[in-house]
Amino acid sequence: MSGPHRITAEPLTRGGFARYGDVLKASGAPDRWINRGLCGRYHDLALLDFGAEGRAGISLFKAVPRNMPYALDLVERHPEGSQAFLPMSPDPFLVTVAEDGPNGPEGVRAFLTEPGQGVNFHRGVWHGVLTPLSGPGLFAVVDRIGPGRNLEEVSLNPRVLVTRG
Amino acid sequence: MSGPHRITAEPLTRGGFARYGDVLKASGAPDRWINRGLCGRYHDLALLDFGAEGRAGISLFKAVPRNMPYALDLVERHPEGSQAFLPMSPDPFLVTVAEDGPNGPEGVRAFLTEPGQGVNFHRGVWHGVLTPLSGPGLFAVVDRIGPGRNLEEVSLNPRVLVTRG
Repeated sequence: MSGPHRITAEPLTRGGFARYGDVLKASGAPDRWINRGLCGRYHDLALLDFGAEGRAGISLFKAVPRNMPYALDLVERHPEGSQAFLPMSPDPFLVTVAEDGPNGPEGVRAFLTEPGQGVNFHRGVWHGVLTPLSGPGLFAVVDRIGPGRNLEEVSLNPRVLVTRG
Repeated sequence: MSGPHRITAEPLTRGGFARYGDVLKASGAPDRWINRGLCGRYHDLALLDFGAEGRAGISLFKAVPRNMPYALDLVERHPEGSQAFLPMSPDPFLVTVAEDGPNGPEGVRAFLTEPGQGVNFHRGVWHGVLTPLSGPGLFAVVDRIGPGRNLEEVSLNPRVLVTRG
């Protein structure tokens, strides 16, 4: 029986995350100033894709905080739609993703968010479940509402141990 | 020249806000337990409506914090779509709405959120602009992306002074 595979969490950047999804953040100059100049709008930051039979919905997730090192033993994907995790607190959280290989998910990577960053997983991308690292673990989630099965789960063996960089 | 009309901010509750939109919050038992019981899902909490030519988008808004009492002198509405304000910090913010009267917006009301509450204004509802009361003033916004003019603004005269209850 082999031990866990070990990886280090990377900083979350748009470039590093582009093959998996979108990083939502309000940095740099906004796309528009609105409300008489009192609000910056960072416009339309996520590729939302809910297929022909789905629609967008907003749900809230409240998750138990996890600790680092974090043992990732399960990944999932939503074949029918994208899924955005929008933190309702400034606390960093852990984002894990994987490639879709010939034998299932492979090449796990982990990203640690900065305060004010959200993510949107593109449709069909393998990812770990919502992983807050501190309370309150509260997130707004924009994902697909619609008919059909929209969840595939795969256990990882060996599991992947994610450590801080 | 008359002075401002004065109102008191009310606590934000689903019942009190129902005629204007949805209150998004994670209270009570979740609709589903997911992720092996480590996450509660409060499912599909908002009536999203983007019309035939619109689609959902996620933007970030970063707004200048305001003070109470707050002088509301402008309301707006989006005739083509709903708009959700999802705070990315636990800080309460002020929500203002108005009825659509024969001569324009009337009957302004104000609501003060609790930590962890978001709102979704239903399509066409008069509301004040995003009003954080402290930093960072960062919100995820789910609203309509699409063609056409989706903003009407009306100045309030006299303005409405919103005080804490």
